[in-house]
Amino acid sequence: MSWENNVRKVVPYTPGEQPKVKDIVKLNTNENPYPPSPRVAEALKSLDVNRMRLYPDPKIEDLVHAIATVYGRKDEEVFVGIGSDDVLAMLFMTFFNSNKPILFPDITYSFYDVWAEMLRIPYVTQPLDENFHIRVQDYKKENGGIVFPNPNAPTGSVLAQEAIEEIVKANPDSIVIVDEAYVDFGAESALPLIDKYDNVIVTQTFSKSRSMAGLRVGYAFAAPKTIKYLNDVKYSFNSYTMNYPGIVLGTAEVYDTENFRKNCAKIMDTRAKAAVRFREMGFTLEDSFSNFLFVTHEKVPAKKIFDYLRENHIFVRWFNKPRIDRYLRVTIGTDEEMEKLFAALTKLLETEA
Amino acid sequence: MSWENNVRKVVPYTPGEQPKVKDIVKLNTNENPYPPSPRVAEALKSLDVNRMRLYPDPKIEDLVHAIATVYGRKDEEVFVGIGSDDVLAMLFMTFFNSNKPILFPDITYSFYDVWAEMLRIPYVTQPLDENFHIRVQDYKKENGGIVFPNPNAPTGSVLAQEAIEEIVKANPDSIVIVDEAYVDFGAESALPLIDKYDNVIVTQTFSKSRSMAGLRVGYAFAAPKTIKYLNDVKYSFNSYTMNYPGIVLGTAEVYDTENFRKNCAKIMDTRAKAAVRFREMGFTLEDSFSNFLFVTHEKVPAKKIFDYLRENHIFVRWFNKPRIDRYLRVTIGTDEEMEKLFAALTKLLETEA
Repeated sequence: MSWENNVRKVVPYTPGEQPKVKDIVKLNTNENPYPPSPRVAEALKSLDVNRMRLYPDPKIEDLVHAIATVYGRKDEEVFVGIGSDDVLAMLFMTFFNSNKPILFPDITYSFYDVWAEMLRIPYVTQPLDENFHIRVQDYKKENGGIVFPNPNAPTGSVLAQEAIEEIVKANPDSIVIVDEAYVDFGAESALPLIDKYDNVIVTQTFSKSRSMAGLRVGYAFAAPKTIKYLNDVKYSFNSYTMNYPGIVLGTAEVYDTENFRKNCAKIMDTRAKAAVRFREMGFTLEDSFSNFLFVTHEKVPAKKIFDYLRENHIFVRWFNKPRIDRYLRVTIGTDEEMEKLFAALTKLLETEA
Repeated sequence: MSWENNVRKVVPYTPGEQPKVKDIVKLNTNENPYPPSPRVAEALKSLDVNRMRLYPDPKIEDLVHAIATVYGRKDEEVFVGIGSDDVLAMLFMTFFNSNKPILFPDITYSFYDVWAEMLRIPYVTQPLDENFHIRVQDYKKENGGIVFPNPNAPTGSVLAQEAIEEIVKANPDSIVIVDEAYVDFGAESALPLIDKYDNVIVTQTFSKSRSMAGLRVGYAFAAPKTIKYLNDVKYSFNSYTMNYPGIVLGTAEVYDTENFRKNCAKIMDTRAKAAVRFREMGFTLEDSFSNFLFVTHEKVPAKKIFDYLRENHIFVRWFNKPRIDRYLRVTIGTDEEMEKLFAALTKLLETEA
């Protein structure tokens, strides 16, 4: 017997690499290549060092209100956390307390099984079809909760709104989480569903479309009753989560819808051009509605491409997992960054093909 | 049956009030009345808006290293979280997984039972003695873990280092957490114990002595093996917790030991004078080693004083709890703020006494 017997043992999650060297092309963690709103720079100048001695607003009211306003919702329908990982972990903790297994796709955001394991939540993964699409009937089984990203990660494919509503409607006894981390890059949000169903929760983030991965802001929309349950657990875990700079800078960003829409449009444009280039080079890929492409080459193994790019200071993501180990997930960067990527790929394929 | 059956139901924690009105004397949440290091203002100017599009360092290496350096420890002996509430919640989650009850004082930081309830950890509170001191023998019972603040909150009293070591030594099968949120105001840290025992964890915070409650930085010291277990759970919950401004500003603060020692000295000086004044006015109080005094008046009920002060825009803390509902916890502010407090108290006591 030792204190180590009572330790929660987990398989530690390995986050995507955040290389410290400069002059790299970083296409590995789906960050936005463009800066956040110019209003963030102004807000930064307004930060008062003396204010830092005081606790921040535990209700994060300014930011909650800003998000509610911009999305045409009520403040009581909005929850804010430290990135959508914090929001999702709190959702798992709050709503997935059944003995029945929760359901999520076999190929999906790699944190779902990590949270389930850590929180001792039973789960059964549901295989995507051969084109990496969610099959609605898989989510009509008995379950203790449902979660999926839309668009899905790392595939980038979307589930139609009617299909999402069908899943929500079929599961009145479960919470259904629609993780919309990538929704702003061309997909449709399930947000309107919260008016009809109190068992659906829609999560979004500042880390992708809003160019603020470094600020750690995620949020969730749901019916007021559902948000209340979530806040009760959050306040019991940590009352003061978001720091004063986070609240001020996040609030400044959220009101500038023009800047972030413009950036998303640029990324979608680059994505369209990149998809053409990838196909010309012998890669196979589905249409993506996110800020990344999920590509596989007919001849050259993904690991080989991954290593070669890495040696050339171009970082993309390769998952050493069943069904997807032949694929690379490539974040859409600037046009210039994509040119560097394609130049390197051209060189590699000349020697390999 | 409904999804609500599977909700984690909690009694929501009520944080100390953060009034939004100006021109108040805020002595209710143990904030520091003095600003953080001037280096924080410089670091603020160095923040790069464009950097915010990238994820922050998940290992928070700069800040971990700064803390390790300043306290003469190795980086592997330091863990950093979003305020010491986040650190403590992670510690409960990581180390308190026994079926045996964890032990903590009956009068103590009001979050311990909240975390235990939320995480379904059995607990048995141990009554402080009649002078509100911890009795060492209470912590030699069979247990699944031990946690206590030193100095204790809201009493401000300390447990001698020998007594702490006795508790740690008597419990090789349990993790013992020494919560040193207030240690810099005149108490001695248990930090050296981590060299001898891998079952002791010492937590501290930027929220009190370092004047940065608004930045949300807490940290823990323990043996490398112990910190490793903690990090594994943390990475499985949320890989990127501290935002980019938090890391930069926190690192700037931690290297300036002179500023924070100077502020602590001022607060201890004000505390000594305030203790004299309170006693002169008919209050009873123990010596405090924290940035607050825990006072009770021989004639006037605490709730009456609390309400009166509040009407006069002076906020102190009153806990409506057994054994301590005759007490007020008064944060040590500036000399000027304390003068306002004593002026109001004088007025009240003239009419009441």
